[in-house]
Amino acid sequence: MTVAAINVAHDVSRCRRYHLGMGRWEPNARGRLMQAAFALYGERGFEQTTVAEIAERAGLTERTFFRHFADKREVLFAGAQALQELLVSTVADAPASLAPVEAVAAGLEAVGAFIQEGGELAHERQAIIAASAELRERELIKLASLAAALAEALRRRGVAEPAASLTAEAGIAVFKVAFERYVEETNEQDLPSLIRDSLEELQVLTAAR
Amino acid sequence: MTVAAINVAHDVSRCRRYHLGMGRWEPNARGRLMQAAFALYGERGFEQTTVAEIAERAGLTERTFFRHFADKREVLFAGAQALQELLVSTVADAPASLAPVEAVAAGLEAVGAFIQEGGELAHERQAIIAASAELRERELIKLASLAAALAEALRRRGVAEPAASLTAEAGIAVFKVAFERYVEETNEQDLPSLIRDSLEELQVLTAAR
Repeated sequence: MTVAAINVAHDVSRCRRYHLGMGRWEPNARGRLMQAAFALYGERGFEQTTVAEIAERAGLTERTFFRHFADKREVLFAGAQALQELLVSTVADAPASLAPVEAVAAGLEAVGAFIQEGGELAHERQAIIAASAELRERELIKLASLAAALAEALRRRGVAEPAASLTAEAGIAVFKVAFERYVEETNEQDLPSLIRDSLEELQVLTAAR
Repeated sequence: MTVAAINVAHDVSRCRRYHLGMGRWEPNARGRLMQAAFALYGERGFEQTTVAEIAERAGLTERTFFRHFADKREVLFAGAQALQELLVSTVADAPASLAPVEAVAAGLEAVGAFIQEGGELAHERQAIIAASAELRERELIKLASLAAALAEALRRRGVAEPAASLTAEAGIAVFKVAFERYVEETNEQDLPSLIRDSLEELQVLTAAR
C-alpha cells in the first residue's frame, strides 16, 4: 500500500508532461487517466484492469477516456510517437559530416535522455509490459516501426540501402539491449551512457572476426 | 491460373520436407494442408481464407487440419521451430576458437542455406506475410524469439552479458536486412552470401565513427 501510494504521488508529476490539453473542462484529464491506469496495471495487472475502472479511479468518465486513448493498451504506448519524432528529428539535424552510425548514436542518446527524465516511469512501464504477452508483442511492433523510421531518416541523409536499414536495425538492437540493462535492478548507469557503451561494445564485437 | 498451377506443383515437392508423418492413414496430410493453405493465401489473401477451405482443397477434414496446426496462421510459421533449432545447434557446434560474431555468422548462414533450399517457398511466404498486419506482427515475434534463443546459445558458449544479447540482436538485424534483400525481385544473390555481405557491411558501418 505504501509503495502504491508513493507510485501514485510520483505519477502525478511524471504524467504531467504527457498532458496534451484536449479540453479545458477537465484539467489534465490525460495525465489523470495515465496515472490511474499505471497504478491499476501495477496493482492488479494489465489484463485484469478495465477502462471503466481506470476512468473511475481518475474521477472521469469512460467517454473521456476514449477521447484520449483508443484502448487501455494505448495508455502505455502514448509516448511512442513522441519518441519516434525525437529520434527522427535528432538524426535529421545531426551535422552532415557525421557518419551514419554517429547520427544514429546522437538520436538514440536523445531518446535515452528523454526516457531518463521520466524517472521511475520507464521502470514501472517495463514491469507492466514484461508481465503481459500481448504488451510484449506491442512493444516489439513499436520497436520495429522505430527501426523503419530511423532507416528512412538515414536515407533522407543520403545513406544508401542496405546501409541505411543495417545501421537502423543495429541501432535499435543496441537501444534494446541498453534499455534492458537500464531497467535492471542492479544497474546504476544512466540510459544515454548505457546506449553509448553498448554501441561501442557492438563495434568491438563485430570487429572481432 | 497458370502461375497458381505451377506454384501448386512446386509446393508438392517443397512441402514434403515439412512432413512429420503424424498418421499413416493420411499420406503427407501435413504437406497437403500446407500446399493448399499457401495456394489459397496467395489467391485470396490470408484473412479471406478459412480452415474449412484449406481442408477441402487438400481433400482432408478440418479435424485433420487441427491435428497438424493450431490455427491457419501457424501453417506459415510451422518451420520456425526447425529454423531456431538449426541456428542454435550450429552456434553450439561451432569451434570454441570462433569469436561470438563468427559463431553467429555460421548459424545464420546455415539458416540461410536451409531457406534457400526451399526455392520459391520463402518468396511466396514473404508475399503472404507482407500483405497482412497480423502476420507481420507474428513474424516480428518469431524473430524476437530467434534472437533470444541465439543469445542463450552464446551464453552457453561462455559469452557474457551484454555481449551475448548484443551479438544476437545484431545478428538477427543482419539476417532481417539480408532476407529483405533476398526476397526483392531484382536480387540474384543467394541468401547465405547476402548474410555474409550484410555482416561485413555492418562491421564497416559500426567502425566508421
